[in-house]
Amino acid sequence: MIERYSISPMKEIWSEEEKFKRWLEVEIAVVKAYEKLGVAPKGTASKILKKAVVDVERIKEVEKVVDHDVIAFIKSVTENMGDEAKYFHMGLTSSDVIDTALGLTLKKVVKIILEALEKFIDSLKNLAITHKYTPTVGRTHGVHAEPTSFGLKVLSWYSEALRNHKRLKSALSEVSVMKISGAVGNYANISPEVEKIVAEILDLEVEKVSTQIVPRDRIANLLSVFSLIAAGIERIALEIRLLQRTEVLELQEPFKKGQRGSSAMPHKKNPILCERLCGMARLLRSYSQAAFENIALWHERDISHSSVERVILPDATNIIYYMLIKADYLIKNLVVNTDRMKESFEISHNLVFSQRVMLKLLEKGLSREEAYLIVQKNAMKSWNERKDFRQILKTDPEILKFLDINDIDELFNIDYYLRNVDEVFKRFGL
Amino acid sequence: MIERYSISPMKEIWSEEEKFKRWLEVEIAVVKAYEKLGVAPKGTASKILKKAVVDVERIKEVEKVVDHDVIAFIKSVTENMGDEAKYFHMGLTSSDVIDTALGLTLKKVVKIILEALEKFIDSLKNLAITHKYTPTVGRTHGVHAEPTSFGLKVLSWYSEALRNHKRLKSALSEVSVMKISGAVGNYANISPEVEKIVAEILDLEVEKVSTQIVPRDRIANLLSVFSLIAAGIERIALEIRLLQRTEVLELQEPFKKGQRGSSAMPHKKNPILCERLCGMARLLRSYSQAAFENIALWHERDISHSSVERVILPDATNIIYYMLIKADYLIKNLVVNTDRMKESFEISHNLVFSQRVMLKLLEKGLSREEAYLIVQKNAMKSWNERKDFRQILKTDPEILKFLDINDIDELFNIDYYLRNVDEVFKRFGL
Amino acid sequence: MIERYSISPMKEIWSEEEKFKRWLEVEIAVVKAYEKLGVAPKGTASKILKKAVVDVERIKEVEKVVDHDVIAFIKSVTENMGDEAKYFHMGLTSSDVIDTALGLTLKKVVKIILEALEKFIDSLKNLAITHKYTPTVGRTHGVHAEPTSFGLKVLSWYSEALRNHKRLKSALSEVSVMKISGAVGNYANISPEVEKIVAEILDLEVEKVSTQIVPRDRIANLLSVFSLIAAGIERIALEIRLLQRTEVLELQEPFKKGQRGSSAMPHKKNPILCERLCGMARLLRSYSQAAFENIALWHERDISHSSVERVILPDATNIIYYMLIKADYLIKNLVVNTDRMKESFEISHNLVFSQRVMLKLLEKGLSREEAYLIVQKNAMKSWNERKDFRQILKTDPEILKFLDINDIDELFNIDYYLRNVDEVFKRFGL
Amino acid sequence: MIERYSISPMKEIWSEEEKFKRWLEVEIAVVKAYEKLGVAPKGTASKILKKAVVDVERIKEVEKVVDHDVIAFIKSVTENMGDEAKYFHMGLTSSDVIDTALGLTLKKVVKIILEALEKFIDSLKNLAITHKYTPTVGRTHGVHAEPTSFGLKVLSWYSEALRNHKRLKSALSEVSVMKISGAVGNYANISPEVEKIVAEILDLEVEKVSTQIVPRDRIANLLSVFSLIAAGIERIALEIRLLQRTEVLELQEPFKKGQRGSSAMPHKKNPILCERLCGMARLLRSYSQAAFENIALWHERDISHSSVERVILPDATNIIYYMLIKADYLIKNLVVNTDRMKESFEISHNLVFSQRVMLKLLEKGLSREEAYLIVQKNAMKSWNERKDFRQILKTDPEILKFLDINDIDELFNIDYYLRNVDEVFKRFGL
Repeated sequence: MIERYSISPMKEIWSEEEKFKRWLEVEIAVVKAYEKLGVAPKGTASKILKKAVVDVERIKEVEKVVDHDVIAFIKSVTENMGDEAKYFHMGLTSSDVIDTALGLTLKKVVKIILEALEKFIDSLKNLAITHKYTPTVGRTHGVHAEPTSFGLKVLSWYSEALRNHKRLKSALSEVSVMKISGAVGNYANISPEVEKIVAEILDLEVEKVSTQIVPRDRIANLLSVFSLIAAGIERIALEIRLLQRTEVLELQEPFKKGQRGSSAMPHKKNPILCERLCGMARLLRSYSQAAFENIALWHERDISHSSVERVILPDATNIIYYMLIKADYLIKNLVVNTDRMKESFEISHNLVFSQRVMLKLLEKGLSREEAYLIVQKNAMKSWNERKDFRQILKTDPEILKFLDINDIDELFNIDYYLRNVDEVFKRFGL
Repeated sequence: MIERYSISPMKEIWSEEEKFKRWLEVEIAVVKAYEKLGVAPKGTASKILKKAVVDVERIKEVEKVVDHDVIAFIKSVTENMGDEAKYFHMGLTSSDVIDTALGLTLKKVVKIILEALEKFIDSLKNLAITHKYTPTVGRTHGVHAEPTSFGLKVLSWYSEALRNHKRLKSALSEVSVMKISGAVGNYANISPEVEKIVAEILDLEVEKVSTQIVPRDRIANLLSVFSLIAAGIERIALEIRLLQRTEVLELQEPFKKGQRGSSAMPHKKNPILCERLCGMARLLRSYSQAAFENIALWHERDISHSSVERVILPDATNIIYYMLIKADYLIKNLVVNTDRMKESFEISHNLVFSQRVMLKLLEKGLSREEAYLIVQKNAMKSWNERKDFRQILKTDPEILKFLDINDIDELFNIDYYLRNVDEVFKRFGL
Repeated sequence: MIERYSISPMKEIWSEEEKFKRWLEVEIAVVKAYEKLGVAPKGTASKILKKAVVDVERIKEVEKVVDHDVIAFIKSVTENMGDEAKYFHMGLTSSDVIDTALGLTLKKVVKIILEALEKFIDSLKNLAITHKYTPTVGRTHGVHAEPTSFGLKVLSWYSEALRNHKRLKSALSEVSVMKISGAVGNYANISPEVEKIVAEILDLEVEKVSTQIVPRDRIANLLSVFSLIAAGIERIALEIRLLQRTEVLELQEPFKKGQRGSSAMPHKKNPILCERLCGMARLLRSYSQAAFENIALWHERDISHSSVERVILPDATNIIYYMLIKADYLIKNLVVNTDRMKESFEISHNLVFSQRVMLKLLEKGLSREEAYLIVQKNAMKSWNERKDFRQILKTDPEILKFLDINDIDELFNIDYYLRNVDEVFKRFGL
Repeated sequence: MIERYSISPMKEIWSEEEKFKRWLEVEIAVVKAYEKLGVAPKGTASKILKKAVVDVERIKEVEKVVDHDVIAFIKSVTENMGDEAKYFHMGLTSSDVIDTALGLTLKKVVKIILEALEKFIDSLKNLAITHKYTPTVGRTHGVHAEPTSFGLKVLSWYSEALRNHKRLKSALSEVSVMKISGAVGNYANISPEVEKIVAEILDLEVEKVSTQIVPRDRIANLLSVFSLIAAGIERIALEIRLLQRTEVLELQEPFKKGQRGSSAMPHKKNPILCERLCGMARLLRSYSQAAFENIALWHERDISHSSVERVILPDATNIIYYMLIKADYLIKNLVVNTDRMKESFEISHNLVFSQRVMLKLLEKGLSREEAYLIVQKNAMKSWNERKDFRQILKTDPEILKFLDINDIDELFNIDYYLRNVDEVFKRFGL
């Protein structure tokens, strides 16, 4: 868990202290279940809660001796507990506590991530609406293609984010599970009743059939969804980087007051945040690879997934949260140079309108071949001489046979290309 | 697409011929839409369909000249079409055809995969039910732990497969999309009406906002789900491999009549199918990595995803299908040596019952510390002398103070460990 | 192995026929060893060679029955061999043949790849030399930074390719190994002498200690090197894509005669080859992931690596070869628009020279703070008013106190930035 | 960087304080170069060194304002430096410092890793020698195959580790590089002389052609080698896990005094360290995936690799170091149950000797078919009736026609299988 990319409240959740508190929360819930089932006397849970001490340093001390974190935790927490200690961790296997607490943790962190995603989605929606009719050059292969609207571009990001939202919600419900089913998942020494009550107390779902642990496909799926969200942000960040190039400058990531790209070159505003986000997407997909490998464990469990998860779960959740917070900031404060977007049409001499000219000539009765040849001739001229395609057309007698000046101007009206934008937005209720 | 791992009907779907036929299907649907909208005369589509020729060799010939597969396709298909040719591909961009046809393809192949998964799930269910009460040693870390039921183990596989089924259904609906929205996704030269009608004809969903193409997070999500399914099969295959070891022999993958593991060693039945399945899971997770990288394309599209998909889409779908077919065969024909499962308890001298002995002594009034020490002493003796734990207990006077011979025998009753199995099965309605 | 990306002679090497011929080559070498050691009579090998028939269809037929490819091969090849058949495959385990033949295959294909890499390196060298002094804008973060030479950029690619060459040579020697050591690698039924002679005949190194097979770290290392080579090509392809953007146009990938990017837009030359190469780099790194997972096999071998290798070895070698051939073509035919490179300086109004102006003012006795403020003021003006920085400077009285017009012009002399280029080239003997 | 898996001295090297100290080391080396070249007065470097203060908290404070770590570092370090401050960082670009310091760091950490690898290799060698002639069952597919020696198995691990050593040495020399070549790598404002002198002072190699940074294929290659080393350890750990299964128990990872696998089951010694190592191998290969993606940066650099490296470089080096330290401990303290190894032959009723029986019958003049049928009949009987194969043979009159009791006993002499072991060890000079 890298300090640099850890943001509250995510980072605190993964602290040792918080982890042990959640372990305690699980242990207490089990005692409550025992109370309810008449196994422990009424009031045991609250007595235990009063006397239980979570002291991270002490736990670590004990762990050095016993070499087992759950045993160290129990020993340390119950040190001055008195008689009630016998109900503490009674009938449980370590993984009952660890995996149920992991369910609590993941539910908590994924909810926070989900909320951050929702804010980000909202920002995307607002940006899309703002620029619904902002004309911009559409590009394929990095090359000017046809006019479109910047809002439509953003709407595509928004639409992808909505899909990721749906996926994340599903992943959240998948990891919000718990298990108290004993050493091999057969409830040999603990009743399914206990599990049911604890699940209710902690507001988690019971893993319907567990081994010693909760199966790891749930986590692998979560990590995959993180990779998808990260790649969605990467797609946006990459677009901004491309449009912030000195030669394009249609977009710029927000530049903080006082921030310096270069001492003397004012144009040297570098899209470093976007670049950072692109790097982080690589991290997240690499984590998902390790998570896939964690699924096929031996028999009722081996512990090979544990070292992996100790690293990737805090890291991946911290980083995806960081990405979402930053991406939201990015979108909310994105510098959109609408003037430059218009100027870009001139860079390719308005040739992005050429197809429409050809279609108009077809309408006027020319054959596809004839229309094509005339347009091509003019387009080549425009391109080679670096002159405005519209002006070139206006001086071509062949063109003027079919189109007058007004006709020609009308063909370069960007509104034509945006006439269906509203229809697309409506599909999203926007 | 490797011949060895390609099975009908999956493999045929990915043939060049089938691909072009789906392209034609899309083109025809567009013409039908034009008919419906009054753009093309009634009957155009059926006339075109009659004259359209899909000749793979001819298309390849043309492609060598024009270096563009869609153009080659159009040229070849319309070669002798006559007047109606002008309505063919009218107003479309290549990706309208390619990606809509890809939607058709993916819907088709994922459905087949889904059906195979369903059969596999059914086989798992049957195996779980059959062995609901088959006692077996539960193992953690590869070491004997506590008694459990083999059916419970299979139920865990079944439960994971059900989760994957849900994920795959969701992924299927995600990839069953199409787009006919032009070169940059803004419907500049084609009406959204056409798209809507084509979607109905082809029974696909409209991509609500597209660029030149359908966004690639959909495919990455599909590949992730394949990785999850594959890892679920890997988990089963790994378990079988572990239980087919010479020293264990509780399970065996089916051995075909006449198949030979070794010329002279009859025990040399190797779990080669399970090993193959484990290898394939590696392939699938590696493909998903490439698919994640395909999401962040430039602007309204770049074509870097294309080479990746040409390789991984046929390969991944063929291999996951192969895995499911073989895994189903594996489960249906799995050799379950229930006798060996019982014998395994003896390998660890029935020590897997030790915890229960201790709990019984607690019941009889001993303190945890006392009970632990007595059990441990006997367990150590059993382990070191390699003698049956039960018999050891029966000769320990200290034990006999609290338990008589019948008591002891009762503690080694496996039924105790299986008493909650029914409860777990009920959660699945089984 | 995808037809589309398979090029001779690579693709033929991976054909079934060639594979079986290499198996035969190994079998014959073993017989020769037996001859040499006096185990088989002189002339046996040549008799066998004469009568051995490699008939792919027949082998497949037999395989359907025996379900084992090596047994099918032996049966089919020896069908009409007569007495000498008894020396064929004598004392060998299947993997002795398969892995030794794999050594032959890999040596062959990696050599071809190495040669392709060498040609590519040569093309890079030539391009670097040609453009040693071609001035171009250096960019960091996609933003104009300082003047540099295009040759220097290419030299960096060249240098990376040289590192990859060294890595590939090492990987080649690592995979050029063989083993004939029996079922568990202990030469139980075959003498190490046989292995030694066969190694000499086939010009491969003996695996000094093998299990049933050659250990798989060798292959994983090879695949890693492929990933590195592919990423090196990706880096170049990405650079070309960035410099081929409509707004930049400094580079263009070669455009074949008659090739069409778009029917009417002459500027629509899309860097599709570069995009394809970028996609392929993703494929290669994904394969290396699977190869890493293939290393940890069970005991003296399990066969889980086999399905993976059947897919990724042909695919990865075909694709890396394709990439190298195409990358070489790309570099050899790259369109370098040196005029556009010069024009690019104007896009940022020659602000890339600002640091040098500041340094000159320092020389003239200004403090760093003073120099900075003057330059910044002028740079801001140039940027905001979109006027040439040099001209702005020439009209600033404050500047003119320290520099005259000639001084100023001298500061914009690109040669200054290229004065150390020769030194760098010399490091490579260029 | 996870505390749990960070070991001295590796973990300290990655502390913020150490990082800044290395930055200072680079800056001082540059000043020394200036001294040597007569640019700065003699004694400047030592004066600066005396006054330079590396105060992590202060640097972080400043970074909050300037949002740039190198600028914050310079500001903080030079705060009370006086006149010499002007020579500090003179003519440098941030990356000159960062990447040169990274060269120092990587050289340092990789050397430590290399030394740990060397110790590990030594332990493997010793274990191999100790068990050179320890008979054990060789297994393929997890199934008993033929007798072999445990030392041979270890020798194979040793041999792989030697290959990794060679790879790591090469990777070490690849990352021990530096660059002081300015903002775009063309030495515009700094002489190549400075770089040369600094390289000598710091004992690093000059990157012969750099961009703003050192190219990232070097790091990707390093991470690949880590993946290979980790997979080599995974292979060993997996073998131990397999041989520590309750049913096998030939090996056991060391069990610390007082460590508890289970409260009452003495056989419950779990190979948790080996499992942890297997998990870590997954982490390392996932990091290498991100490292491959870091190679293709834009132009003279973009900063997308930075966030990735901030995470994976400390993590990967810490974890691979942890793995090597633990793997060395594992091998040094491995419990080898040679008695159990012998007993294992009985588990498959000595059938692993069957091939040798068949070969002997061939020697005695039987045809392959006859020999095969006799052996198979007896082997089947042994397997089905679970009786010792040797004893079965001794009672088969057909066998006794060709072999007497002594002959038979001789065939079950394990020495036969180990007769070439010495030859193999000799190849390593052992």
